[in-house]
Amino acid sequence: MVPRYTRPAMEAIWAPANRYRIWFEIEALATEAMAQFGDVPAESAAAIRRNGDAAMAAFSDADLARIDAIEAETRHDVIAFLTWLAEKIGPDSRFVHLGMTSSDVLDTCFAVQLTQAADLLLADLDEVLAALKRRAFEHKYTLTIGRSHAIHAEPTSFGLKLAGHYAEFDRNRARLIQARAEIATCAISGAVGTFAHVDPRVEGFVAERLGLQPEPVSTQVIPRDRHAAFFCTLAVIASGVERLAVEVRHLQRSEVREAEEFFHPGQKGSSAMPHKRNPVLSENLTGLARLVRSHAVPALENVALWHERDISHSSVERNIGPDATIGLDFALARLAGMMEKLVIYPERMLANLESLGGVVHSGEVLLELARSGISREDAYRIVQRNAMATWTRLAEADGRSFRDNLNADPEVADKVSAESLDRAMDSMRHLAALDSSYRRVFGEPGPAAP
Amino acid sequence: MVPRYTRPAMEAIWAPANRYRIWFEIEALATEAMAQFGDVPAESAAAIRRNGDAAMAAFSDADLARIDAIEAETRHDVIAFLTWLAEKIGPDSRFVHLGMTSSDVLDTCFAVQLTQAADLLLADLDEVLAALKRRAFEHKYTLTIGRSHAIHAEPTSFGLKLAGHYAEFDRNRARLIQARAEIATCAISGAVGTFAHVDPRVEGFVAERLGLQPEPVSTQVIPRDRHAAFFCTLAVIASGVERLAVEVRHLQRSEVREAEEFFHPGQKGSSAMPHKRNPVLSENLTGLARLVRSHAVPALENVALWHERDISHSSVERNIGPDATIGLDFALARLAGMMEKLVIYPERMLANLESLGGVVHSGEVLLELARSGISREDAYRIVQRNAMATWTRLAEADGRSFRDNLNADPEVADKVSAESLDRAMDSMRHLAALDSSYRRVFGEPGPAAP
Amino acid sequence: MVPRYTRPAMEAIWAPANRYRIWFEIEALATEAMAQFGDVPAESAAAIRRNGDAAMAAFSDADLARIDAIEAETRHDVIAFLTWLAEKIGPDSRFVHLGMTSSDVLDTCFAVQLTQAADLLLADLDEVLAALKRRAFEHKYTLTIGRSHAIHAEPTSFGLKLAGHYAEFDRNRARLIQARAEIATCAISGAVGTFAHVDPRVEGFVAERLGLQPEPVSTQVIPRDRHAAFFCTLAVIASGVERLAVEVRHLQRSEVREAEEFFHPGQKGSSAMPHKRNPVLSENLTGLARLVRSHAVPALENVALWHERDISHSSVERNIGPDATIGLDFALARLAGMMEKLVIYPERMLANLESLGGVVHSGEVLLELARSGISREDAYRIVQRNAMATWTRLAEADGRSFRDNLNADPEVADKVSAESLDRAMDSMRHLAALDSSYRRVFGEPGPAAP
Amino acid sequence: MVPRYTRPAMEAIWAPANRYRIWFEIEALATEAMAQFGDVPAESAAAIRRNGDAAMAAFSDADLARIDAIEAETRHDVIAFLTWLAEKIGPDSRFVHLGMTSSDVLDTCFAVQLTQAADLLLADLDEVLAALKRRAFEHKYTLTIGRSHAIHAEPTSFGLKLAGHYAEFDRNRARLIQARAEIATCAISGAVGTFAHVDPRVEGFVAERLGLQPEPVSTQVIPRDRHAAFFCTLAVIASGVERLAVEVRHLQRSEVREAEEFFHPGQKGSSAMPHKRNPVLSENLTGLARLVRSHAVPALENVALWHERDISHSSVERNIGPDATIGLDFALARLAGMMEKLVIYPERMLANLESLGGVVHSGEVLLELARSGISREDAYRIVQRNAMATWTRLAEADGRSFRDNLNADPEVADKVSAESLDRAMDSMRHLAALDSSYRRVFGEPGPAAP
Repeated sequence: MVPRYTRPAMEAIWAPANRYRIWFEIEALATEAMAQFGDVPAESAAAIRRNGDAAMAAFSDADLARIDAIEAETRHDVIAFLTWLAEKIGPDSRFVHLGMTSSDVLDTCFAVQLTQAADLLLADLDEVLAALKRRAFEHKYTLTIGRSHAIHAEPTSFGLKLAGHYAEFDRNRARLIQARAEIATCAISGAVGTFAHVDPRVEGFVAERLGLQPEPVSTQVIPRDRHAAFFCTLAVIASGVERLAVEVRHLQRSEVREAEEFFHPGQKGSSAMPHKRNPVLSENLTGLARLVRSHAVPALENVALWHERDISHSSVERNIGPDATIGLDFALARLAGMMEKLVIYPERMLANLESLGGVVHSGEVLLELARSGISREDAYRIVQRNAMATWTRLAEADGRSFRDNLNADPEVADKVSAESLDRAMDSMRHLAALDSSYRRVFGEPGPAAP
Repeated sequence: MVPRYTRPAMEAIWAPANRYRIWFEIEALATEAMAQFGDVPAESAAAIRRNGDAAMAAFSDADLARIDAIEAETRHDVIAFLTWLAEKIGPDSRFVHLGMTSSDVLDTCFAVQLTQAADLLLADLDEVLAALKRRAFEHKYTLTIGRSHAIHAEPTSFGLKLAGHYAEFDRNRARLIQARAEIATCAISGAVGTFAHVDPRVEGFVAERLGLQPEPVSTQVIPRDRHAAFFCTLAVIASGVERLAVEVRHLQRSEVREAEEFFHPGQKGSSAMPHKRNPVLSENLTGLARLVRSHAVPALENVALWHERDISHSSVERNIGPDATIGLDFALARLAGMMEKLVIYPERMLANLESLGGVVHSGEVLLELARSGISREDAYRIVQRNAMATWTRLAEADGRSFRDNLNADPEVADKVSAESLDRAMDSMRHLAALDSSYRRVFGEPGPAAP
Repeated sequence: MVPRYTRPAMEAIWAPANRYRIWFEIEALATEAMAQFGDVPAESAAAIRRNGDAAMAAFSDADLARIDAIEAETRHDVIAFLTWLAEKIGPDSRFVHLGMTSSDVLDTCFAVQLTQAADLLLADLDEVLAALKRRAFEHKYTLTIGRSHAIHAEPTSFGLKLAGHYAEFDRNRARLIQARAEIATCAISGAVGTFAHVDPRVEGFVAERLGLQPEPVSTQVIPRDRHAAFFCTLAVIASGVERLAVEVRHLQRSEVREAEEFFHPGQKGSSAMPHKRNPVLSENLTGLARLVRSHAVPALENVALWHERDISHSSVERNIGPDATIGLDFALARLAGMMEKLVIYPERMLANLESLGGVVHSGEVLLELARSGISREDAYRIVQRNAMATWTRLAEADGRSFRDNLNADPEVADKVSAESLDRAMDSMRHLAALDSSYRRVFGEPGPAAP
Repeated sequence: MVPRYTRPAMEAIWAPANRYRIWFEIEALATEAMAQFGDVPAESAAAIRRNGDAAMAAFSDADLARIDAIEAETRHDVIAFLTWLAEKIGPDSRFVHLGMTSSDVLDTCFAVQLTQAADLLLADLDEVLAALKRRAFEHKYTLTIGRSHAIHAEPTSFGLKLAGHYAEFDRNRARLIQARAEIATCAISGAVGTFAHVDPRVEGFVAERLGLQPEPVSTQVIPRDRHAAFFCTLAVIASGVERLAVEVRHLQRSEVREAEEFFHPGQKGSSAMPHKRNPVLSENLTGLARLVRSHAVPALENVALWHERDISHSSVERNIGPDATIGLDFALARLAGMMEKLVIYPERMLANLESLGGVVHSGEVLLELARSGISREDAYRIVQRNAMATWTRLAEADGRSFRDNLNADPEVADKVSAESLDRAMDSMRHLAALDSSYRRVFGEPGPAAP
């Protein structure tokens, strides 16, 4: 992920220093476990912990360079790290990594990194949820037109619109918790997972200290269906980001102008057209969603490793591990800020709602006619005729509103009273069930009607 | 999905007759609910149920043709169905679909179909799990070589190999239960989800009868993040199918021949080469996995519908709904049968295990040397030297086994006793932890050692 | 692909009858070639051709059933066909398929089917191109607002908009011709491609008769990079369909209403809201584009077959072969019809163009100020200030147009004359280069200015 | 793309310094064109070129920091660059970017970067082709078993195997040249592509100097179908990399051992198992192929931008531009080196070929029987029976070869002479057509038979 879309806390998780810190922690914990179960002298385990902690505390670019230099020769990253570590620890280092295989370290480390990343993403989601809830409460009674097919359908509440997105992000939060559990496992089971050289209790010890579960059957590697499920979950969340971003882009378009991303003083929308204020944040989120989604495909292709393992997943994960989590972290943080500061124009919403001459109430008028005893088919024909007559002549000087047309239509006037039409064409009726919907989403009804 | 990969029970879920049956059920239940809450005369609801049930019971190709004919004019599938239904029900039909919108029917129906499909898939998974458990128990103590990078690593148990796949399919089962819950929701909330024309209790009534949950916020449609999560789960499961299929393909290859798909009497492997017995089932499963996986991408793209809804998801779902579930149903059933009947060659496994002259025990020999006080680096060098000398001269007349080489190496002989080497090079040590691993996977240790 | 999106001509290409017809043609041609080169008696080749042609001409459902029955036993589709064919041809049948392998028939047949499909798609593209050209010429001088970020940018011509889509479909046409050439190859090279049992001249003979090129190196199969390139090309074309579909969806949205899909008499837009006229065709095209695009992923995964071939590609291609071509055929035909009949509202375009009080001319005003000697940075500040003042107060009673604001701004009035501002704010200046653009796209300037 | 998989020359193309160098070149060329066509004073254009060239030549990290600082305020990258450039150029800077829009610079720059990247990739492909040709010539007459379904099929030449991959990479080379042409276009057409503020001849001038074609219709942006086609082509090439990588992984597996990646002195295959030599390069290539392939999906999703443009493609391209080209560059270079140094074991190939007791000649024996007058069906049955009897008892002490079985079968002996069987079972017959195949691929027959 390019620096432009990288936030420091998530970047730090994927930095070499964090990786080596986790590698050492796994090795140190494993040695301590072996000491406890009798395979390693206690004083050696203590020395490894003491000297290793000191080395990690003092870890610098020089250490990075040293490890890289060793890897250039051995062509094996874990061996390079262990060789460097041995230089720091001294003779006791021969008890490090005893009976373990590289992937015990690599896969358990990846699990720790992914749980760290998931925790940041959960915090991001909380920010998004907080912003959405605040705005949903603020605009619970803000009338706006609901649109299906991007065509005016019936009135709704702008707050309810946001509540729907809140509900989706709430689901995404639950999915991410589930996905975090998927990848939070530990493997210290040896070359092909038979525990031939290491006591299974070591795995249990390390897992518990790291907040992980032991992997039921690891075969050098933790099985990759877990990671596929994890990256698919990120893809679903990213798609939720896109849905809200697309909503904002629509609301800001020149002909709608119901909401607008905050435009900073000094900001320039276009080098050529000084009048421009573009929804660049939400457009950017749309693209980031495509990126995060794209990582699901290779993650799925990674599942079918050969036999006990092959290493084809590695180059994929070295990239999508950081890219997907950094990209989604940035997207969620940007989304939260964007929604927090979104400029909302209730008057414009009302103007748009009313711009089609009242035809948006055709559904309830249809029901009134049906209630009066007209067959559904006839009622439909009558209402459609009057609605279309309004819509298609909106721009004309003698354009008549839907109500005008209904009033003038004898098939209507005979059957439905003016009071009934008034009721049918009152937008407020669409706000009547808000408390119930809010209770479903937020567990509370939200503010009372003004 | 082409007929070749379609099983009847899953096909029936997606047949028009089942769809119309569910549509009617939703309409009938909704009318009954409205009758209960006072909006519809009880006798009308009863008549709708009675006449509709009769019409659905007698549903024939003539009805299909009639509905198609109406749709050709109205260009709207639900209106076509309702018109046909009105012909069957008579005057009471004006109480059908009252205050509802087409998507209330369409989306709730899709939820019912997907839960039906998920139930079939869960039964398929149970078949796969049963086959894997049986074979894993049967071959708990069948020695085989574990392979990393497709290179012999260390011995393992063929049963443990299968146990690992069992554990993955067990996770897949849990994921599918979760995914089923994701899409098991009901929406009867009107044109943009405000319940302006329908009592929210109607939704609750219908949901409960259909075994669904009310959707917290539907906006004409049930939000598509649910479906994206569902199809992503199918993609993860398909990838698990592929992993096992690829394992079988490897095991059957001519140079390995450790297992073989059952070859039917009369079967022909090749039109040109009568000697051929090809792993065509597992190759077929590999391709089917690619197909099912591919459906995740458009499902994810379906999430970001415009405003309260657009209908772009529809053409996607008309295809991937059937295709993904039919494809995975076929794949799982084929996989279960294939594993049930897989011909397994334990002698060949043993022969392969031993074919590299014992170098597969290099890891434990390394540990023995390390235990003797040699530094890890030196021990590695010594063992690597002796192992490579064996491996690279395997085909030669004077090729010596790894043990021969170790015996002849003074750096080894001085440090490690013959008994220790015997112990280190005993494949059975890799079977010692099987009870523990089986207990993790199956909740029981499996058969005792023979 | 579900019947709803299937057109008969494309469906016929993928029907079993067409497949068997092509299989027979390949076998018959190969036998004729072998007769010519001396491996098969001429009278046998003639008998095969004669009896086979008769059998194919009389091909019925009974033949299909017979072939299926044989395949149920042999589990091999080509052998089943050859057995049926032998029943029809008699003793000479032993010269059929001589030295050939099933894939010689299967892969060459797939090449023929894909070229047939490509030819239909090319004809579809021609329809799209014709419709776009007609409408682009019709609306060459129809002023409309150009939008970047969905925000009004500067005026443009509606015809030029369509010309841009024409240019894209013209590129798509060229790509499809290229992709057709990619897959138009023939393989009759035997079990692993060594021509050990068949004269290479047979391949040349058959290829030439079928309008194909011999595959340089086939290894039982034609290499799948060709097919991957083909399906990727369909994905690119589908994305072009989506781009135009999304444009129409935007133009039809209630707040824009600049164009509208043709609404049939009797058509109903919504079961609940009689006023609705939805852009359902373009939404449908958006979904179909997602589907066709999704087939690129498994086609790419099909490339890396094992060794000389495995058969994992087969289940993928049995589906995506028909699905992608049928889906795209339907989409292109629908798109052509939709564009042909699209209802276009030039007055509404003009009204929208003018709805932002003239700020859409900010770019040229900026240039005028720059030409007057003001620095670019100062000019930008001045223009932005006046444009924003208009835009943000559009709805207010005292809202002043951009020109009003400029006139009242001393920093402008001192520098730029009223005449210059008139010129800068004349939308017609944006139509001046149309002849040049049309010439690039259509090879002719199109109609003269009215 | 992580540094591990990044080569300097490709990295430099995507570095900010190169981007700003190209941006300046576009601006300078455009100003020179405007000077030529009379819109800008010649001395100003000369000053811009002179001062700008000096600034770019002296471009340092301080300049990067300055541009970043301006962007932090303006939130617009091109404006930030132009402001910095104005500081360097002085008063003449007001003629820079005159009548242009940011995307004129951005999109034309992206085109230049992609052509630069394509040129590096073409050079990489030439390396791959050279290595494959050399090894294909070297091993033209190296007998090896051809495998379909990973089951021994018939003998072939190892050189022919490589020739097939050569042919695929040759196609990939042609595709990349085509894809390079796709994206080598220039847009300098203003805010929505009407040339309202800039002379179309400026675009022609700049395009020609940069080695690009003018884009027929750009609408602020160059249409993204071009880029989709480009990234799809990279995906096809990556899949070809995977196909060859998978072949090498199979050849190196312990049971096959026909080829091996070069193993460096000092290299360590596993931290736990000193005997290991793993095909880590080809496994790595497999993963890189998944990554590069994954970029096609968001590139396709980028096509359907809204109206004249939205900016959602930008965040995608900032990542996949570098990632896909850097990843493929690394993969191709690694592949070329790997194939160049691949250790090939002809004796092992021969041993494997013969390991199935001669059944791999069943096809030609079948033909011999058929030639003798036995019906195809009977011949198949006879050969299958004898081949299976060999295969399934290969490991047994009394296992008889296919030839033994045929000799003992009266249905064979009566019909086919021993000489005919000798001929039929001679592997060399599979090398007879090599000259012809090589000529198709390389344009020359390659070395003569030894």
